[in-house]
Amino acid sequence: MSTQSIHGIIGYTITPFDSEGQLDLPALGHSIERLIDGGVHAIAPLGSTGEGAYLSEQEWEAVAEFTLTQVDRRIPTIVSVSDLTTAGTLRRAQFAEAHGADAVMILPISYWKLSDEEIFEHYRAVGDNLGIPIMLYNNPGTSGIDMSVDLIMRIVNAVDNVTMVKESTGDIQRMHQLNLRSQGQLPFYNGCNPMALEAFVAGAKGWCTAAPNLIPDLNGQLYTAVNAGQWDEAKSLFYRQLPLLDFILRGGLPSTVKAGLRLTGLETGAPRPPLSALNAEGCHRLQRILDDLR
Amino acid sequence: MSTQSIHGIIGYTITPFDSEGQLDLPALGHSIERLIDGGVHAIAPLGSTGEGAYLSEQEWEAVAEFTLTQVDRRIPTIVSVSDLTTAGTLRRAQFAEAHGADAVMILPISYWKLSDEEIFEHYRAVGDNLGIPIMLYNNPGTSGIDMSVDLIMRIVNAVDNVTMVKESTGDIQRMHQLNLRSQGQLPFYNGCNPMALEAFVAGAKGWCTAAPNLIPDLNGQLYTAVNAGQWDEAKSLFYRQLPLLDFILRGGLPSTVKAGLRLTGLETGAPRPPLSALNAEGCHRLQRILDDLR
Amino acid sequence: MSTQSIHGIIGYTITPFDSEGQLDLPALGHSIERLIDGGVHAIAPLGSTGEGAYLSEQEWEAVAEFTLTQVDRRIPTIVSVSDLTTAGTLRRAQFAEAHGADAVMILPISYWKLSDEEIFEHYRAVGDNLGIPIMLYNNPGTSGIDMSVDLIMRIVNAVDNVTMVKESTGDIQRMHQLNLRSQGQLPFYNGCNPMALEAFVAGAKGWCTAAPNLIPDLNGQLYTAVNAGQWDEAKSLFYRQLPLLDFILRGGLPSTVKAGLRLTGLETGAPRPPLSALNAEGCHRLQRILDDLR
Amino acid sequence: MSTQSIHGIIGYTITPFDSEGQLDLPALGHSIERLIDGGVHAIAPLGSTGEGAYLSEQEWEAVAEFTLTQVDRRIPTIVSVSDLTTAGTLRRAQFAEAHGADAVMILPISYWKLSDEEIFEHYRAVGDNLGIPIMLYNNPGTSGIDMSVDLIMRIVNAVDNVTMVKESTGDIQRMHQLNLRSQGQLPFYNGCNPMALEAFVAGAKGWCTAAPNLIPDLNGQLYTAVNAGQWDEAKSLFYRQLPLLDFILRGGLPSTVKAGLRLTGLETGAPRPPLSALNAEGCHRLQRILDDLR
Repeated sequence: MSTQSIHGIIGYTITPFDSEGQLDLPALGHSIERLIDGGVHAIAPLGSTGEGAYLSEQEWEAVAEFTLTQVDRRIPTIVSVSDLTTAGTLRRAQFAEAHGADAVMILPISYWKLSDEEIFEHYRAVGDNLGIPIMLYNNPGTSGIDMSVDLIMRIVNAVDNVTMVKESTGDIQRMHQLNLRSQGQLPFYNGCNPMALEAFVAGAKGWCTAAPNLIPDLNGQLYTAVNAGQWDEAKSLFYRQLPLLDFILRGGLPSTVKAGLRLTGLETGAPRPPLSALNAEGCHRLQRILDDLR
Repeated sequence: MSTQSIHGIIGYTITPFDSEGQLDLPALGHSIERLIDGGVHAIAPLGSTGEGAYLSEQEWEAVAEFTLTQVDRRIPTIVSVSDLTTAGTLRRAQFAEAHGADAVMILPISYWKLSDEEIFEHYRAVGDNLGIPIMLYNNPGTSGIDMSVDLIMRIVNAVDNVTMVKESTGDIQRMHQLNLRSQGQLPFYNGCNPMALEAFVAGAKGWCTAAPNLIPDLNGQLYTAVNAGQWDEAKSLFYRQLPLLDFILRGGLPSTVKAGLRLTGLETGAPRPPLSALNAEGCHRLQRILDDLR
Repeated sequence: MSTQSIHGIIGYTITPFDSEGQLDLPALGHSIERLIDGGVHAIAPLGSTGEGAYLSEQEWEAVAEFTLTQVDRRIPTIVSVSDLTTAGTLRRAQFAEAHGADAVMILPISYWKLSDEEIFEHYRAVGDNLGIPIMLYNNPGTSGIDMSVDLIMRIVNAVDNVTMVKESTGDIQRMHQLNLRSQGQLPFYNGCNPMALEAFVAGAKGWCTAAPNLIPDLNGQLYTAVNAGQWDEAKSLFYRQLPLLDFILRGGLPSTVKAGLRLTGLETGAPRPPLSALNAEGCHRLQRILDDLR
Repeated sequence: MSTQSIHGIIGYTITPFDSEGQLDLPALGHSIERLIDGGVHAIAPLGSTGEGAYLSEQEWEAVAEFTLTQVDRRIPTIVSVSDLTTAGTLRRAQFAEAHGADAVMILPISYWKLSDEEIFEHYRAVGDNLGIPIMLYNNPGTSGIDMSVDLIMRIVNAVDNVTMVKESTGDIQRMHQLNLRSQGQLPFYNGCNPMALEAFVAGAKGWCTAAPNLIPDLNGQLYTAVNAGQWDEAKSLFYRQLPLLDFILRGGLPSTVKAGLRLTGLETGAPRPPLSALNAEGCHRLQRILDDLR
C-alpha cells in the first residue's frame, strides 16, 4: 500500500490489562472494532496511548500480531516500534512488517540524549532493513529528544522509506517549516490533540489521536468539515471537543482514555504501574465532559 | 468609538530617526500614509516595532501626538503606553486619551518579575483612571512576564475597560482558552506574525503586525480570504508571505522593518543603540525575500 | 583606586521613598551608615535592590550623587548605571565617574533581546568613553539576556576597563569557566545570595548582596571564615543565614529588604508600583526568620 | 551493612561489549579491579554510565551478579535497578538484594511523565518489599522527571529504606534544601561531576562518578583534601580535573569513559546503538586532556 492512503483520523489503541495486570486481548479486539465502527481512517497500536514502552517483548509482539489480525487490512495499520536500542527497534519493525503492518512509527526514545548523528544513524539503520514506510515521530514531551526541522529534513532526504512525519510538539511553526522546506511534498501529521484544527489549516494530512476511543463522531466530523472547506463548522466542532482533548492530554492518555472507555461501557483495566488509573475526581470530571458532548 | 471597530490588520509603525539619532517626524508621517494607503484597519504607534521603550518621555509624547494628528481618525489608533512604573504608564495612557487615541495597549514590562497581584493592580490602577479601552498585551519574549490565561481573565473580568487581549506567545492554546473561557465574547488579537493563519481560524479578530510596512497587500489579502471563508486561498497567501514574516520576527522588528523600508524607498534611519541596523548580509537576504514576493 | 580593592561583602542599598513616593534621601543616608557600620567592604547604589530601573533620570542622579557624597570614599562605591539605551548608560556612567565613583556596574537590560554583537558594542561604547573600571553584570532573571562565558570573555579581552564580572545566574559552572578561561586572573563576584558559600570556594572575590541591610554580621563572619580557611565554620554560618537569603531572593529584594529595614527600625517606605510592599504574611515570616538569627 | 558506610568516591562501572556487541564480562572484571585499585569507596554498576537502560533483562542480571561476585564485599556495591515499570524495578531490586548488594539506586525513569503521587507509589511499592537501603536518584536530564525537594522529603519520610539521595540536577540549591529540611540528617550524594567541589562544601557525603575509571587518584585526592579541611588544595585539585569532568559529562558518559579506557589500555568496546563511540576528534581531545593530567 502507498503512503498516500494514510490520512484523516488515525486512531490510537489502548492496551487493555485484566485485573491481574495481564494482557486482555479480547478487550483489545472490542476497542479496535469500536474505532473502526467509529470511522477512523487508520489504526495505530502500541503508541504512547498503547503503553508500548511498558510491555515485555513477548507482550509487545502479542499485541502487534493480534491487532494486525483483527484489523485484517480493512484500514491501514501503523505500528509504533520504538525501542531504546536500535537493534530492538529494527527487530520490532521487521516483526510488524512480517505480520502485515502498512507502516511503522518510530520515536527516538533513549535514556541518554542522542546527538543528531546518533538519531540519523538510528533511522538509517532501521530504514535500510525495512520494506515498508516509516513515520518519523517527534515528541520531546515523552522522548526527551526534540528533533529540529533541519534534522528531520535530513533524515527524510537520506532514508528512502521515511516518508511521513508526525509532529507532537504543539508548535505550529514546525509544520510550517516542514511544509515550506518540502515544497508541500512531505506528508505531515499532527499528534497534538488541542492543535487539531490549526494543524489541518496548516496542511496536516492527518490527525494521530486517541480521542476516537471516546468521541469518534466529533473527530470524524471535524475532518469532514475541513475537507469540505467548511471552516466555520470545523471551528465550531473543534471548540466543542476541545475540553475533552485538553483533558485527555493533561491527564495522560493511557489513564484518561482507559477511564473514558470504562465510562462508555468497555472495561480495559488500569494502566501499568507506575502509571496509575484516573482518580475518582478525574473520572467525575471526565463524565461531565462526556455528558456535555452528548 | 467602540471596541468593536478594532479588527483586521493592525499596522505597527516604526519610529524614524535622522542621521543624528533624533526623531524624524516627517518620515513617520510618510510611513503612516503608506500603511493607510496599504489598507490597514488600524494604526498602532510606539509598540515593540516603534522602539517605544527606547525613547525619552519627551520623544514619546512627540511621537504619540504626531501620530494621532497624522491619522486624524481616518482609522482607529491604538497607542502603546507601557512604562516600567505604574505612574508612568498611567501618565502616558492619559496623554494618549487626551490626544484622541481610540485605545491604548499595555504590556506589563518590568525589571523585577511581577507577581500576579502586582500585575493585576497595575492594570486596575490604569484602567480606573482612563476613559478609553485598554488592549492587554502578553509578550513574555520582550517583557519577561508571561500572564496566564487565568490572570488575563481575572483582569478582564475586574477592570471594565480592559476589553481586548493581544497574545504574542505563539502558543495557539492561549487563544483557545481565551475563547473557551469567555464563551467567545472576548476579542483577542494575534501578535505572533508566523501564526497569522492559525490565529484567524482559532477566532482572532485581528492581526497586530509590522509587516504592512513592507507587504500590505499580502497581509490584507490574507484577511480578506479569511473573511470570505476561502481557506485554500488563505493558506496559499499565508505560506507565500511566511518567509518574510519569519525573517522580520527573527531579526528583530525595528532592525528588519527599517531595513525593508529603506529597500522600498523610505529612509527611516537606524534603530537606537544598543539595537543595531540590519547588517549587509541580512539586507541582501531581505531584498531577495521581497523580490520573491513581487 | 585599583580594581584590586573591590572584594568581600559588597552591600547594595535600597532607595527609600517617603509616603508620597518621593525620594527620601535622609533615610538613604541612614541606610548607608548602617551598611558601613555593619562592615561591608564596598557600597553599590542603584542596582536591582535600589530600584534603579524605576527612577526618573533626575531621581537617579540625585541618588548617585547623594550616595557618593555620603560614602565619601570611606570604602569603594560601585554605581549601577544600566539604562535601556547605550547613550543613557554612558551618560550615567560618566555622571558616576564625575562624582567620584570607584567603578560602575553594567547589566545589558533591554526590551528587545540583544545579539552578542549588540551587547559587545554596548560595552565597548561605554568602556571607550570612561576612565574607571566596569563590572560586567550577568543576570538573565531580571535582564532577560544571558551572556555566555564566551561572550563575557570576548568583552573582557577587548574592552580594557571591563575588569570585573558579577555573575547572578546561580549556575556555579559559569564561575568555573570564568576561572578556567582566565587562568584565575579575572576577578568574579557572586550575585546569587543562596550560592554565597560555594561561590567563595570556587574562587569568587566578593559577594554582591543586599543582605547586609539586615544581617551584616553574619555576612561578614562568613567572609572572614572563608578567608581564614575555616570551612566548617563557613558552612555553619552559611546554613544559618540561608533561610533569610532564600526569603529575600524569592520575595523580590526591594520589597523584602525594605520590609526588613522597617522591622529593624529604619523606615524606607514601599517600593515603587507596580512593585508592591511585602504583605502582612510575608512580614510575619520575615520577622520570624530574623528572630531565629538573633 | 549500614548506610553510614556509603561515602566518598562512588565509582560507576561501564558495561563492556565485545566486537559483536555481546557482554564482555572479563573486561568488566578488569575495570572493577582498576576502580578498586584506584581507591574508590564504593562500586555502582548498571547506572547511567553502565548503559543499564540498554540491556536485556538477561544481560542486566548477568552484569549485576558478576559485579557483586567480583567485588565480593571488599567495598559496598550499590546496584542501579531502575526500570520503566514498577514491577520490573522491584524484580531487579530483589535480584540485587538476593545476590548481595549493599544498596540499590532508583531513578524514576518513565515514558509518560509521572505525577508526584505515581512517583511516591513507585518508591513505596519497591521499598515495602525490599530489605536493603534505597538511594533515591534525581536526574531530570536523563529521566525527564524532576523530583522537587518537597517530594523527595515526603518519600524519605514515608518509606523507611529510602535513606540516601543522589542529586544530579547540578543545582546546588537542591542540596541546600535537603540539608536544611532534614536538619543535616539525610545523607545526600552528588551526581553532577563538575559540581564535585561545591557539593562537598555544601555537605555531600559522597560523589557518584564515572571519573575514577580514568583519573582515580585525582578524584580520591580531592576527597582527601576536603576531609582534611584543606580547601585551597581541594580547589586546586578540582580545577585541575575539571576539564576532564566537563568533557565526559558533555560527551555522554558511556561514550567518553569507554574511549578513555581504551586510551588507557583497557578495551571495553563501543556503547550500544543508538549510542555511538566517541569520534576521532573527540578521542584526540580526550587524549590531550588526559596527557595534561599526567
